[in-house]
Amino acid sequence: MPVFVNTVIQKNYTSGIENNNTPITILTSSVSPQEVTLHIFLKTTTIKTIQKMSATKGYAAYNATDNLAPFDFNRREVGPHDVQFEILYCGVCHSDLHQVHNEWGGTVYPIVPGHEIVGKVTAVGAHVRKFAVGDLAGVGCLVDSCQECDNCEKGLEQFCRNGFTGTYNGKDKISGGVTYGGYSNQIVVDEKFVLKVSDKLPLANVAPLLCAGITTYSPLRHWKVGKGHKVAVVGLGGLGHMAVKLAASFGAEVTMLSTSPGKEQDARHLGAHHFALTSNEEQVKELTGKFDFIIDTVSAEHNYNVYLGMLNTDGVMICVGAPPTPSLISAFSLIGGRKSLAGSLIGGIAETQEMLDYCAEHNITSDVEVIEMAYIDEAYKRMLKGDVKYRFVIDMATL
Amino acid sequence: MPVFVNTVIQKNYTSGIENNNTPITILTSSVSPQEVTLHIFLKTTTIKTIQKMSATKGYAAYNATDNLAPFDFNRREVGPHDVQFEILYCGVCHSDLHQVHNEWGGTVYPIVPGHEIVGKVTAVGAHVRKFAVGDLAGVGCLVDSCQECDNCEKGLEQFCRNGFTGTYNGKDKISGGVTYGGYSNQIVVDEKFVLKVSDKLPLANVAPLLCAGITTYSPLRHWKVGKGHKVAVVGLGGLGHMAVKLAASFGAEVTMLSTSPGKEQDARHLGAHHFALTSNEEQVKELTGKFDFIIDTVSAEHNYNVYLGMLNTDGVMICVGAPPTPSLISAFSLIGGRKSLAGSLIGGIAETQEMLDYCAEHNITSDVEVIEMAYIDEAYKRMLKGDVKYRFVIDMATL
Repeated sequence: MPVFVNTVIQKNYTSGIENNNTPITILTSSVSPQEVTLHIFLKTTTIKTIQKMSATKGYAAYNATDNLAPFDFNRREVGPHDVQFEILYCGVCHSDLHQVHNEWGGTVYPIVPGHEIVGKVTAVGAHVRKFAVGDLAGVGCLVDSCQECDNCEKGLEQFCRNGFTGTYNGKDKISGGVTYGGYSNQIVVDEKFVLKVSDKLPLANVAPLLCAGITTYSPLRHWKVGKGHKVAVVGLGGLGHMAVKLAASFGAEVTMLSTSPGKEQDARHLGAHHFALTSNEEQVKELTGKFDFIIDTVSAEHNYNVYLGMLNTDGVMICVGAPPTPSLISAFSLIGGRKSLAGSLIGGIAETQEMLDYCAEHNITSDVEVIEMAYIDEAYKRMLKGDVKYRFVIDMATL
Repeated sequence: MPVFVNTVIQKNYTSGIENNNTPITILTSSVSPQEVTLHIFLKTTTIKTIQKMSATKGYAAYNATDNLAPFDFNRREVGPHDVQFEILYCGVCHSDLHQVHNEWGGTVYPIVPGHEIVGKVTAVGAHVRKFAVGDLAGVGCLVDSCQECDNCEKGLEQFCRNGFTGTYNGKDKISGGVTYGGYSNQIVVDEKFVLKVSDKLPLANVAPLLCAGITTYSPLRHWKVGKGHKVAVVGLGGLGHMAVKLAASFGAEVTMLSTSPGKEQDARHLGAHHFALTSNEEQVKELTGKFDFIIDTVSAEHNYNVYLGMLNTDGVMICVGAPPTPSLISAFSLIGGRKSLAGSLIGGIAETQEMLDYCAEHNITSDVEVIEMAYIDEAYKRMLKGDVKYRFVIDMATL
């Protein structure tokens, strides 16, 4: 019955009771003396399930409507393969907003959002090889996966067959509870899911690379976008501004597609070679069959067929944003020109590291507005209006 | 003004008046003496526009509702690069039905459908190199393209930047009128658009390869489908049965997806290794994430998201059928698993020849029901009910 006993003990610990020092106190009345004996045996061999909690300060949404507020919780003790780090900055992603408001369903409250996390290592487990105390470190959208399936073996942990563990609001396989994200002062993550962060770049501007950066880098690399390609980016926000910077750095000829003429100057400043107004029918017509790739970062309703019409033969439109409801798409838009409409989701751990290294080498970061923790509700409101250039990043010293 | 004059002269000729022997008769009252002079000069240099017509028997729809009926018309005289051949068999494609009923708009009546054409060469132009009188020949969905754009140069005539000329109901660049298809006793086509047909295979069964064959062969080749791939085919009709045969012959593991349990035996007979009922929720669930490729041949409304859910990571669903109205598709169906929804349209001329040669080598043909010309309206009715295994082919001796 070791599995059962493990579960019982784990349940006690994840209730927040720090009692991993002997003597063990069994709180669950249903545990029999035999099971206690088994547990005492197991204590010496299954160290991962018996952990000391680490008091953590965070900021959480307690329900779908109220403002976020302080929330104290426990992180697990640093295991042999774990890295613990002090969070210095955390980016604010649109997903934070969606999940705080339970717009995708399944939000477990209180929820501590944040998956664009950078900081400084404060402790490492005995078997950790990649990190030492004092190193800069980052965590993106995932903190665990099965590590056994074919996708995990291929470095596609984001497509883990058994489901990856999201950095927040994910089912924590170790604690049995829910994961808490980067709106907090520290985090403990298996080193396999911790990224090395260069000290060459301003740390606040690096944070959004962990989601917005990899989300746009991964498809550009997967579809081998580079010199000689004409690429359009739809939507100039957190994802869009990274897509422009990265595609341009890969040598592609980049066109920003926007409904707002006011964005032209900014788009060009970010590296776009061209700008077109999709609200102008004449300009849309001129773009017929023009692009090899379109990176679509828009998560509001929009007419996909208009953009598919702008693809060249064999062109690919890649969705990294997704409207909440399905969109009307004509198969004829794809058949004429052998076009594809594809999707892409963040990136695997190895590719995220590759992206961070590439950005450090090429001096690419996100354009950010650094905010205090208490500003978060106002930041959400401004995000909804697109009023940020181009990512809010929380300075965790203000927590 | 030579262009204008050419147009005037051409207009007379395409009215069916055979008067290419001197003296030239100018019938259009608006032509001035200067223009006549210009024409006489042009006659010696622009031979392509001045042709003797060749009386042809056909079968046409005179409007969107009446039954098809006999129609006599003229084919152009065999030009120096042209091949003329007697049509022996012509396949009946769903597009024939759509265009006869003007369901896609733009039908010019009378319309002579048919673009799965095989026959025997009766005449060749002076510069024709590939064909001799008596050879077997075929013509598919296109009879001309600009031959100058990048897509034509790449052998993608089906995506000609200037628009390919459809075998029927296309704008005939030579006559200035409309093209007439294979429901007729002969055809004249530039040899670049005429395919060599092997005598190893039964000719009636070869005809549907010119559309149904290449439409499924081309995407299977483009996406390099073969051994180690799991492929699903949606819809067991003219296209679907060719997709099953070809995918299986390429070494893929093929699953037939159908709503009709009665089709299982036939699907397996055609080469499918598995069969699944998409009307059975349990079977659909079991197929989650299973296929590397799905070839979707269905042109009726259907739920794309169900099939996208069956794609494996990086899987591609290729539409070769298209419902008349747009379908609701969720970007989330694509993002999870980096999936693609793509389209494919027939194939280029070189690839069509490659397909015919491959089929001759591997003894692959279409399963057909040979009919008489006068049965065509009944055949259309049965096609609408899916009551054909799997392609009607008209025996042109019955015209």
